[in-house]
Amino acid sequence: MKYTKQDIKEMDQRYRAHFINSLSGFKSANLVGTRGLNGLDNLCIVSSVVHLGADPALLAFINRPHTVERHTLENIIETGCYTLNQVNQSIYPKAHHTSARYEREESEFEKAGLSALNLDFPAPYVAESAIRLGMRLVEQVNLAVNNTIMIIGEIDEIHIKSTDWIEDDGKVCIESAQTVCVSGLDGYHTTNTLERLAYAKPIR
Amino acid sequence: MKYTKQDIKEMDQRYRAHFINSLSGFKSANLVGTRGLNGLDNLCIVSSVVHLGADPALLAFINRPHTVERHTLENIIETGCYTLNQVNQSIYPKAHHTSARYEREESEFEKAGLSALNLDFPAPYVAESAIRLGMRLVEQVNLAVNNTIMIIGEIDEIHIKSTDWIEDDGKVCIESAQTVCVSGLDGYHTTNTLERLAYAKPIR
Repeated sequence: MKYTKQDIKEMDQRYRAHFINSLSGFKSANLVGTRGLNGLDNLCIVSSVVHLGADPALLAFINRPHTVERHTLENIIETGCYTLNQVNQSIYPKAHHTSARYEREESEFEKAGLSALNLDFPAPYVAESAIRLGMRLVEQVNLAVNNTIMIIGEIDEIHIKSTDWIEDDGKVCIESAQTVCVSGLDGYHTTNTLERLAYAKPIR
Repeated sequence: MKYTKQDIKEMDQRYRAHFINSLSGFKSANLVGTRGLNGLDNLCIVSSVVHLGADPALLAFINRPHTVERHTLENIIETGCYTLNQVNQSIYPKAHHTSARYEREESEFEKAGLSALNLDFPAPYVAESAIRLGMRLVEQVNLAVNNTIMIIGEIDEIHIKSTDWIEDDGKVCIESAQTVCVSGLDGYHTTNTLERLAYAKPIR
């Protein structure tokens, strides 16, 4: 079946949102933890975290400024810090709930039933997450094309619950950590390893 | 276990690449198909495709200009077009092979054993992929922080092999299409649906 740009344009708005959100493939599931200068914590799930580079260790995610992530964005800009916490099989319904539109003075930690973990870092971690990153804001890139904002951050510290998940060559088996992935706007999935493939070399 | 920025810096380069690439969570697996003005086809796997917005329908991916994706980038800039083809369980080893460093005059389609499908679009699709997008370049954003380039494109056309995968509300069940996800640099995974969750509303 083929769909043209015109077909996409004519779709009902919610239908199009579900449809287009499915097309990029499976997505990462992370909770962004922030604390405003007012001392209030904020938590929101994002499915757009993407690897930018390993040295320096940089990750980016996409922020839609007119939606629920706005408080998160404000806190990141105010403080320059945030945490990324991988969503796992035990907490995905709670993590999903953080996408509800709460007021700034309401804490999604409390509303979703997740625990803020205060370590020696200016933003709260999610205690129930097994792989957690403390991030420092490096740059915000305004994408004029649709008024989204890409937040680029450098990994400042990493917390991994079990070193058993770290393979000899450095790969972290996030499947063993029961990390989930997302499809579309609301689909949550566990994974089964097919295999790890060797570094690809040209066939001559 | 905690790792500091200094610990990351002191890691062996390959170890760090595996380690940091695992931390963003599961990634999408897509093949980028391009055709240069010289008529030569290029194909490369990327794990950084991310949803930017549904209206207009925009996707982005990250390109490292000094690696194997360089030919892809050159072709996209020359022609303004590319295809994105979801990697599925039947073709993931072939898809992975497209990451080998071939010369520009060599076609990764041929080398990897995948078939270029020429439809009425200026870039080749992957015949073996069940969910394929024809993309028009909208913008390239240079990320000075680590010399990567974000390619933003608008979906011009969509090919989905079976409409059975499209749910009533528009979500495409990419698990039914046997789309795979990636972890780290070389881990391939199938998925099992946990559930779809309802749109989250505040609890008062």
